[in-house]
Amino acid sequence: MNRSAEVPTEHHDPQPRRRVPSLVLVNTGDGKGKSTAAFGVVLRAVARGWNVAVIQFLKSGEWKVGEEAVSRDRLGVDWWAIGEGFTWDSSDLTRDEAVARAAWGHASAVIAGGAHDLVVLDEITYPLNWGWIDAGEVVATISSRPAHVNVICTGRDAPTPLVDLADTVTEMRKVKHAYDAGIVAKRGLDY
Amino acid sequence: MNRSAEVPTEHHDPQPRRRVPSLVLVNTGDGKGKSTAAFGVVLRAVARGWNVAVIQFLKSGEWKVGEEAVSRDRLGVDWWAIGEGFTWDSSDLTRDEAVARAAWGHASAVIAGGAHDLVVLDEITYPLNWGWIDAGEVVATISSRPAHVNVICTGRDAPTPLVDLADTVTEMRKVKHAYDAGIVAKRGLDY
Repeated sequence: MNRSAEVPTEHHDPQPRRRVPSLVLVNTGDGKGKSTAAFGVVLRAVARGWNVAVIQFLKSGEWKVGEEAVSRDRLGVDWWAIGEGFTWDSSDLTRDEAVARAAWGHASAVIAGGAHDLVVLDEITYPLNWGWIDAGEVVATISSRPAHVNVICTGRDAPTPLVDLADTVTEMRKVKHAYDAGIVAKRGLDY
Repeated sequence: MNRSAEVPTEHHDPQPRRRVPSLVLVNTGDGKGKSTAAFGVVLRAVARGWNVAVIQFLKSGEWKVGEEAVSRDRLGVDWWAIGEGFTWDSSDLTRDEAVARAAWGHASAVIAGGAHDLVVLDEITYPLNWGWIDAGEVVATISSRPAHVNVICTGRDAPTPLVDLADTVTEMRKVKHAYDAGIVAKRGLDY
């Protein structure tokens, strides 16, 4: 039985490796788990004693409110859901754009400030792809961050400059989704 | 600008939908984030007041020990890392198999017991694919679970019967990994 082909071999490797002070991760694709995996890393980072910040670039009603409360209250995470209440079917583009830009302004200050070991830019790809936030500016800010600050960006269709910048990019691909079988999103699992 | 094509439309849909009392999720693929996304759902489930259990089917040194401690101590999660200390390069197959079977025996009792709203079977695909645990038995146990018990299975190469059973299957696909650029796994992010 060839076990070596089936196991997560990244934990066992004899090659020489280099250490980096921090990493940039991107979780993209059309599948579930982009933000969820980032929140899993938040849990891990807290377990290691890191200071963690989350900035949400989209917000929709109850979505992630629970995660925010638990992360703040029990894990000590700094959490900003600045894009409060704006949704994609809003007709007020001007306000939405201004809110997204304010979110990015705050996020860039948090990254540059260096008070956090991990900064999660949750769903930043949407305002990036809508042209509300400049990708070049985001890449420049992340590139020139303090050495110890790790960054995770989430959202569909991560723009190429962000993918190029990232150390690790994972695509969450939908193989099968309950929703396609006519099942409603489930509180506790899906939101 | 067509915004509708770029946003997570699963949150806005006019079609009639049915509710189910619980779901089965599978996170598979060769990319990062399979377990991590499951831990993100744990955070969400705790935020909703759910009772959560995690059973780890692989364990490697420090890996996930931090998540275990934080999940137990701060989130009140019941966590069993029964496959203690066994690794894929062990030559003691008999013991490894016995440990994996014991882990499954415990997991099936937890699922059937119904005391938890969410049971995570972390990395169960490995002992399944090695033939240590019977996939038919796992599918039968999950199929006949108490109606309110949600189950998440993680690991590469999820076996077909498990994929068929699942409501939602996500493949985490590696697009780019820091490891391939010769960067060592980073404590706090990768483990």
